[in-house]
Amino acid sequence: MVRRSARSRNRRQEPAVKQLPWRQLVNPYSPIEVLSTDQIEAIHQSSLVLLERTGMRVLHEEARKILKAAGADVDPTTKMVRFDRGLVEEKVALVPSEFTLRARNPERDITLGGNRIAFCTVSGPAYCTDLDRGRRTGTFADTCDFLRLAQSLNIIHQEGGWGFEPQDLPPETRHLDMYQAQCRLLDKTWQPWALGRERSVDAIEMACIAFGTDREGLAKRPPFLTVVNTNTPLQLDIPMAEGLIEYAQAGQVVCVTPFTLAGAMGPVTLAGTLSLQNAEALAVLTLIQIVNPGAPAMYGAFTSNVDMKSGSPAFGTPEYTKAALASGQLARRHGIPFRSSNTNTSNTVDAQAVYESAMSLWGAIMGHANLVYHAAGWLEGGLTASFEKLIVDAEMLQMMAEYMKPIEVSEDTLALEAIEEVGPGGHFFGSPHTLERYETAFYSPMLSDWRNYETWKEAGSIDTTTRANKIWKRLLEEYQPVPLDPAVDEALAAYVAKRKEGMPAAGK
Amino acid sequence: MVRRSARSRNRRQEPAVKQLPWRQLVNPYSPIEVLSTDQIEAIHQSSLVLLERTGMRVLHEEARKILKAAGADVDPTTKMVRFDRGLVEEKVALVPSEFTLRARNPERDITLGGNRIAFCTVSGPAYCTDLDRGRRTGTFADTCDFLRLAQSLNIIHQEGGWGFEPQDLPPETRHLDMYQAQCRLLDKTWQPWALGRERSVDAIEMACIAFGTDREGLAKRPPFLTVVNTNTPLQLDIPMAEGLIEYAQAGQVVCVTPFTLAGAMGPVTLAGTLSLQNAEALAVLTLIQIVNPGAPAMYGAFTSNVDMKSGSPAFGTPEYTKAALASGQLARRHGIPFRSSNTNTSNTVDAQAVYESAMSLWGAIMGHANLVYHAAGWLEGGLTASFEKLIVDAEMLQMMAEYMKPIEVSEDTLALEAIEEVGPGGHFFGSPHTLERYETAFYSPMLSDWRNYETWKEAGSIDTTTRANKIWKRLLEEYQPVPLDPAVDEALAAYVAKRKEGMPAAGK
Repeated sequence: MVRRSARSRNRRQEPAVKQLPWRQLVNPYSPIEVLSTDQIEAIHQSSLVLLERTGMRVLHEEARKILKAAGADVDPTTKMVRFDRGLVEEKVALVPSEFTLRARNPERDITLGGNRIAFCTVSGPAYCTDLDRGRRTGTFADTCDFLRLAQSLNIIHQEGGWGFEPQDLPPETRHLDMYQAQCRLLDKTWQPWALGRERSVDAIEMACIAFGTDREGLAKRPPFLTVVNTNTPLQLDIPMAEGLIEYAQAGQVVCVTPFTLAGAMGPVTLAGTLSLQNAEALAVLTLIQIVNPGAPAMYGAFTSNVDMKSGSPAFGTPEYTKAALASGQLARRHGIPFRSSNTNTSNTVDAQAVYESAMSLWGAIMGHANLVYHAAGWLEGGLTASFEKLIVDAEMLQMMAEYMKPIEVSEDTLALEAIEEVGPGGHFFGSPHTLERYETAFYSPMLSDWRNYETWKEAGSIDTTTRANKIWKRLLEEYQPVPLDPAVDEALAAYVAKRKEGMPAAGK
Repeated sequence: MVRRSARSRNRRQEPAVKQLPWRQLVNPYSPIEVLSTDQIEAIHQSSLVLLERTGMRVLHEEARKILKAAGADVDPTTKMVRFDRGLVEEKVALVPSEFTLRARNPERDITLGGNRIAFCTVSGPAYCTDLDRGRRTGTFADTCDFLRLAQSLNIIHQEGGWGFEPQDLPPETRHLDMYQAQCRLLDKTWQPWALGRERSVDAIEMACIAFGTDREGLAKRPPFLTVVNTNTPLQLDIPMAEGLIEYAQAGQVVCVTPFTLAGAMGPVTLAGTLSLQNAEALAVLTLIQIVNPGAPAMYGAFTSNVDMKSGSPAFGTPEYTKAALASGQLARRHGIPFRSSNTNTSNTVDAQAVYESAMSLWGAIMGHANLVYHAAGWLEGGLTASFEKLIVDAEMLQMMAEYMKPIEVSEDTLALEAIEEVGPGGHFFGSPHTLERYETAFYSPMLSDWRNYETWKEAGSIDTTTRANKIWKRLLEEYQPVPLDPAVDEALAAYVAKRKEGMPAAGK
């Protein structure tokens, strides 16, 4: 945490951060289609054959029982579950095409599906980094700052599940502290973790407290979207199965995301990896719909490729972009809301970080992703969350939001009279047509510096990443607390304290 | 120029630069359409009314005569030329939908039109910059290095007209030295300048010498594409009119590009500025087709917006992207090859430079631009050409080229058997399906560093812009001369020497 005294000192020097207002986004343009309908069908049919002939290994016994009861072919020795295409198609058809997530602040509710799109912060990294303190293991205080930034940035529609691991907290109870912090510091929706039964039940119980409701009330108006990954290829592990069963039973949104890296856990050909991704997603979606028919769910895609020289994953590659666009086509074929991500492989917030992110973002947005996960803050192939990248990404997201505002064509905007009034060789600066509209005519950036070279140089030649550093600090200074009802706050604290009884304490 | 000794010293340390091979690109995906057919028609109709009711001021007397003889309404006092819509539509319909540009090396010929796309280096900046020497006025030696890099980068399909001004050469004869250098250092197509009659005639004469042909031969197989800008709003100046008449008469490709900055030279509304852009482009295309019916030409779009606080231009904005996509729709409506650009406003090769470039590039490519001008090297709103940005852009262009390679869907690539062979929980590294394909399966970057953080840090934490610096130097070391026939070389030198007689000498 940046010291309070430093914050006060800076307050008068740094201008307030300009942002776009909060608003839900709609993508008005047709998606980019990189495959024909026949090709999409060929990939899907190959997935169905794979599920029928080979199936998935489901390590969790209860999950196997649920699948068997619904008619899947289960081999108790190998734990392999084979899925009849009829079963898959019947169950997958139950997934709603749209859902609404309830936020503490009703104005921050988000609806996902169709052409609607939401941006969500990074989650999962082991490390965090910023220009002042470098790359390091993050603390609870760091993750709380990251939550404050997710709350403060209007372009962020959802907090993704604490930006990185607070490594000063014991792993067994970390999620309790983080859920509590998410309840306290955010009035937007946020993601809990699906890693095992306990982490899932705790999230659900704490949400009941926070919303002053019970499980039935929570199911009617779900606040949660959580990610379930497969162990690609063709395996579902126990913690993820536990998590998905809990959340599905509770009517919360499960986003099924196979972790398909072409050349490593998937075939070296994109068509093959997409077919594997599709098979795994459909298998898990089938399980979810057996657990709770009609439960909201998402089709997540994470297909990228590895560097074939080193075997390490690469993100924001041209293959990643194509896979995102193709995955959007598959999700739309199934009529299921689609999740993609904003990824990159760079080790620092430089040109590479941005051009890889741009490849990811265009794939996500023109693939009509409904949720762009890791939309802000992801660095280093997802190993590190960066405070500066969070701001660079927020600027890129704002630009994409403005790109999605259609051009208005009317007599007024065609401006024929205004053009004729100004006439040849003139300019429009003083034209009444300009003066009436100039304040809101164009996107005004948060981070970009459009000053000329001389002015920029006189002001210290400050590059974009360094400006981003100033902006996140300023946002922390400006953070507006969103206080909980004291009774709710107390009840949440009591829940956390009770659950921690007998568990390892911080600092262990 | 980097000293030869330094080059030799580095030769053993730096690995050879990996690049994609030269190839002509085709965009296989449908363009993004940001406007409906009706909206495009409304913009076009507004342009026609503007040309009928107000028209353009044409400062060049001969151009006015040509237009008057073809039936345009010319006011000799105000120099205003009004265009009947019938005249415009008749003439614009004559523009060929496709053309081929002849390069010295026939393997470097490029065809533009339809879904074909080519990338061209920056042109026009007053300054150049690199990490070693900073921002400065460029010299002839600097521009020659930039030409060598344009020649060496396979992803560059055309050299754009010497990257920046060689300010150590007198302005009156600079073009002669540069045309000579373009002839000597490039076997790709290159752009000459259309600024005035002399610069245009010299290019045509020198091309006749270089190709060993006459004006008739040159017209049959044109080597040149040159940009003609209007003085927006609604004015065509004398040098540009002279240039376009010369090139059109010689059957060379004229790319008409109104310089329409919304809020300054164009209305503050995008629809208005697009309508103005369209009117000016159509007026000049009409003039070209009167001069030489059926002469190849392009529809160029440069619509961006200004920063309404400072009045200075901004590039790579969301408005820029939308305007590029809409301009592509207008160009396709007319059936004319389309030119867009890769622009940004940043003062240094940082995150902003890249995210603005990405917005420009996606607009150009998904707007189905046939030529992406300034595709590599543009910085600082076009005031500076950057050696490092040239390399960063080349990487971005390579990624876009790979993005435009369709996903192959076949039994072979669906890899059903390979997936079943590997089975649950396995991996594909050693799979025969992988081993047969891994070397060419994925894009292998020129500039990106995909090593993990620790390895990257041990190697010195070198950021992308610094790596780009090493790459352009290495490319200069590796530059393969493309010697001219000595007789041609001599004849070009003699032409230049003769033309310089009585003109100011270098160093003046």
